[in-house]
Amino acid sequence: MRFLAGVATLVMAALPLRAEDMVTDFRLENGMQVVVIEDHRAPVVMHMVWYRAGAADETPGVSGVAHFLEHLLFKGTETLEPGEFSATVAANGGRDNAFTSYDYTAYFQRIAADRLELMMQMESDRMVNLQLDEKDILTERDVIIEERNQRVENSPAALMREQLDAAQYLNHRYGVPIIGWRHEMEALSLEDALAYYRQYYAPNNAILVVAGDVEPAAVRTFAETYYGVIPPNPELEPRVRPTEPPQTAARRMVFEDPRVAQPYLRRSYLAPERDAGDQETAAALTILAEILGGGTTSFLAEKLQFDAQLAVYTGAWYRGTSFDDTTFEFVVVPAEGVSLAEAEAAMDQAMKDFMADGVDPAQLERIKMQLRASQIYARDDVERLANRYGRALASGLTIEDVKAWPDVLQAVTEEDILRAAEAVLDLDTSVTGWLRAPQADAEVGQ
Amino acid sequence: MRFLAGVATLVMAALPLRAEDMVTDFRLENGMQVVVIEDHRAPVVMHMVWYRAGAADETPGVSGVAHFLEHLLFKGTETLEPGEFSATVAANGGRDNAFTSYDYTAYFQRIAADRLELMMQMESDRMVNLQLDEKDILTERDVIIEERNQRVENSPAALMREQLDAAQYLNHRYGVPIIGWRHEMEALSLEDALAYYRQYYAPNNAILVVAGDVEPAAVRTFAETYYGVIPPNPELEPRVRPTEPPQTAARRMVFEDPRVAQPYLRRSYLAPERDAGDQETAAALTILAEILGGGTTSFLAEKLQFDAQLAVYTGAWYRGTSFDDTTFEFVVVPAEGVSLAEAEAAMDQAMKDFMADGVDPAQLERIKMQLRASQIYARDDVERLANRYGRALASGLTIEDVKAWPDVLQAVTEEDILRAAEAVLDLDTSVTGWLRAPQADAEVGQ
Repeated sequence: MRFLAGVATLVMAALPLRAEDMVTDFRLENGMQVVVIEDHRAPVVMHMVWYRAGAADETPGVSGVAHFLEHLLFKGTETLEPGEFSATVAANGGRDNAFTSYDYTAYFQRIAADRLELMMQMESDRMVNLQLDEKDILTERDVIIEERNQRVENSPAALMREQLDAAQYLNHRYGVPIIGWRHEMEALSLEDALAYYRQYYAPNNAILVVAGDVEPAAVRTFAETYYGVIPPNPELEPRVRPTEPPQTAARRMVFEDPRVAQPYLRRSYLAPERDAGDQETAAALTILAEILGGGTTSFLAEKLQFDAQLAVYTGAWYRGTSFDDTTFEFVVVPAEGVSLAEAEAAMDQAMKDFMADGVDPAQLERIKMQLRASQIYARDDVERLANRYGRALASGLTIEDVKAWPDVLQAVTEEDILRAAEAVLDLDTSVTGWLRAPQADAEVGQ
Repeated sequence: MRFLAGVATLVMAALPLRAEDMVTDFRLENGMQVVVIEDHRAPVVMHMVWYRAGAADETPGVSGVAHFLEHLLFKGTETLEPGEFSATVAANGGRDNAFTSYDYTAYFQRIAADRLELMMQMESDRMVNLQLDEKDILTERDVIIEERNQRVENSPAALMREQLDAAQYLNHRYGVPIIGWRHEMEALSLEDALAYYRQYYAPNNAILVVAGDVEPAAVRTFAETYYGVIPPNPELEPRVRPTEPPQTAARRMVFEDPRVAQPYLRRSYLAPERDAGDQETAAALTILAEILGGGTTSFLAEKLQFDAQLAVYTGAWYRGTSFDDTTFEFVVVPAEGVSLAEAEAAMDQAMKDFMADGVDPAQLERIKMQLRASQIYARDDVERLANRYGRALASGLTIEDVKAWPDVLQAVTEEDILRAAEAVLDLDTSVTGWLRAPQADAEVGQ
C-alpha cells in the first residue's frame, strides 16, 4: 500500500495543477441563467434544467411534493402526450431522467448533439404547459409511495436516518425527508402539485446547463428561442428559509428494528455550508472529512479498524454544497463482540487524540494531491462537470465559486482544519443515533 | 394527613354530583361564535375574544409573530390612540390583558357589567382597524425580546425545554417556542405582523366569551351591533396543520448550563389530545397524570420521594386541551448524592412496577372525588369557566365536549388508565432530557 501510494504521488505531481474548464455563462432577459460547458471530443450533449426549488422549499404539510412534481413532469403538456417526452428522447437515441434534492429539482437528457434543439423545445414546453388531471395524481402518488416503501420503509438504516435528521434540525426543512413523510405523501393533491409548479417552475428560477459538443452562441440562440419567450414569475420571492436557533443540547437516539443484522452508530453535527465568496471553512471541513473518514487510510480507520480492531467500518462525511446549514457526519460499525457504547467511546477517544495530535502533514499533502487529481479527472467527465455547476448554482454559489473551489481546497492549512473541527464538532449541535435489533433485556429508558 | 383526607371525603360526598353551568351559545351571521356564561352574584363581567390562531399557526421563519401581534394590538386603531385601550379600561375601573398560546390568542377585560358595551366597541374596533407603523414595530420588538430574555434566556430550565420540545416534534410547529426563536424575533417586520393579522383576525375565526352578570339577549344585541357588522375573512382556510410522522426512535439530550444549581430530568412522550366527541383516552391520561405525579400522594412521590428517598420532587403532567397531538411528561429532581442516571433508572423501575401492580382503586376514587370537587369549585369562579370554554373551543372542542368532560372523567376505569399508559408511554415517541451544570470530567459523547 505504501509503495503504491508513493507511485501515485509521483504520477500526480507530474500533472498540471489546474486548467480552466471551458465554461461560458450568461443570462436571458427573463432571468434564466445559462451555463455552457464545451467538450468537443464526442458529438454528444448533456442538456439539464435545474430549478432553484427542492424539498426544503415546500410548504409545511405537503412534504414530498417537490419530488412528486418531478414525477409528474413526465406526464403530458398541451402538445405532448403523457410519456411522449421520454419516448421521444429514447427514439432519438438518448436517455433522460430527473432528480430532486433539498435545494433543487433537475431534469436532464443525454443525447446526440444535433438533437439539442428538440430537447430545449420539449423541456421549455413542460416548464409552463404541464397538463395534469386527477388520474395522474392517483397513479403517480402510488408510484412515489411505492418508491418510499422501497427506499425507506424497507430499510431500517433509512428509517433511522429520517428520525436522526428530524432531530438534527430544530427549525429548518432539512429535517423533513425529501421523499416526504408517508402520511403527507398519501394526501398530496393535484392542487398541491400545481401550487408548487406555479410558484417555482419559471425561467427566473431556473438554470440551464448544456455540456458537450456545443458552441455557446448556438446554445444562446436556441435558449432565447425556447426558454427566452417564457415570462418570468413576478411573484418569485428571495429564497429565504427559516434558519436554526442555537442548538444547545446534544441529542441521542436508539433506533431498534428486528431487521437490523449489523448494528452501527451515526453521529451528525450541524455544520456551515459553502457560501458564495466564503468557502474557506467548508474547504477545511471537506478535507477534515477526508482525513478522518475518507477510506481505509483515514485516521478513524487507522485507529478503530487497524489498531484497536474495534470497528469493521468507519466513515466521515461533509456535504458542503448546500443552500443552508449542512451536516458533518460520522459512522462507526463495531466489530463482532464490540458494543455500540464501546465503539462510540472509541470514536470519541480517537477524536480527542486527533485534536491533541493535530494533522499529519504527509496525510494532508496526500489528500490535497488526490483532490487535484480528481479535479483533473473531473474535467474529462463532462456530465460530472455539468452536475457540479448545476448543483453549486442551485445551492447559492456562483460560477466563480465553482472555479475557485480547487484553489480554496489547496490553500487549506493544518490550522484551518483544526480550527474548523474545533468549531463544528460541538456536541451541543449533534445527534448521535444507534441502530440495532431490539434488545431482549434492554432497560427501559436506555 | 390520613385523617384530613378522611374529612375531605365526607365533605365531598355531600356535594351534589354536578349541576349545569349556565351557558348559552350562538353564532353571529358572520360566523363569530358567542358563549355567554351567567353568574349574577356580582355586577361584574369578563369579556374575552379568543382567536383560533396561535403560535402553531405561524408561517415558518416568523416564529413569535402571534405573540408579537398580541402586544401590537395594544397600539392604536383609526379611532384609539396607542395605549388608549388599556387606559380606558383602567379609567372605567377594569383591568385588561391578553395571552398567546400554540392554539389561540385571547384578549380580555374584567370590568363592571354596565361597561360591557364599551368593551365590545373597543375590542371589535381593534379586530380590524389596527394602525401600526415602523416605530411601533421597533419599540415592541425590543419589548418581546426583553420578555424572551427574562423568561427564557435567563432560565436554563426554559432553554432546555425549548430544545426538548424541538426534539419532541419532528414535523409540527409545537416544536417551535411560542415566544419565538430569538433570531427570528429579531427580524419580525411590520409586514409579518400585518400578514398574520389580516389572515387570522376576523369574526369567523373568533370566539366571544362573556361571563358574569349579563343576560344572553343583551350580549347578542351588543355582539350583533359591534362584531356582527365586521365581514368574515373569505380566505380563511380549514385549520389543518402538518402532523407528526411515526416517531420511531427514543431521543435523549443533556443540557448543560453553569447556572444550574439543581439538576433534574424531564421526559416527554407524544400523546393524543382531547378530540371533539372522543375524549375518553384524554380523560384516562388526565387521571393517569394525577395518579403518577399529581402531588405528594402520587405513585411516583410515594416510590421515589418517600420509600426510596432518591428524589426530592416528582411530577407528571398531561395537557389534554390542545388542537393537535400533545405531550405526557415526567419530571424527577434527584435527592442530594443521587445521579441523574440513578434517578432515571428509579423512575423507569417505578413505572414498571405501576404497570405490573395496576391502579390502586382507592387512589382512583380519591382522584375522581377531587376532580368532582374542583368542577364544583370551578363553577364558582366565572373567570375560570370563561377560560375553560374559550380554551376548549379554540382547541377544536365543542360546548358539548366541555359539558361532558366531568362525566367522561368520572367514567374512566382502571383498565382505561392502564391501556392508555401502555399506548402512550412508548419510548419511541419520547424525549428524555437531563439538565445539569457542566461536568468537569464528562466524557465526550456522554
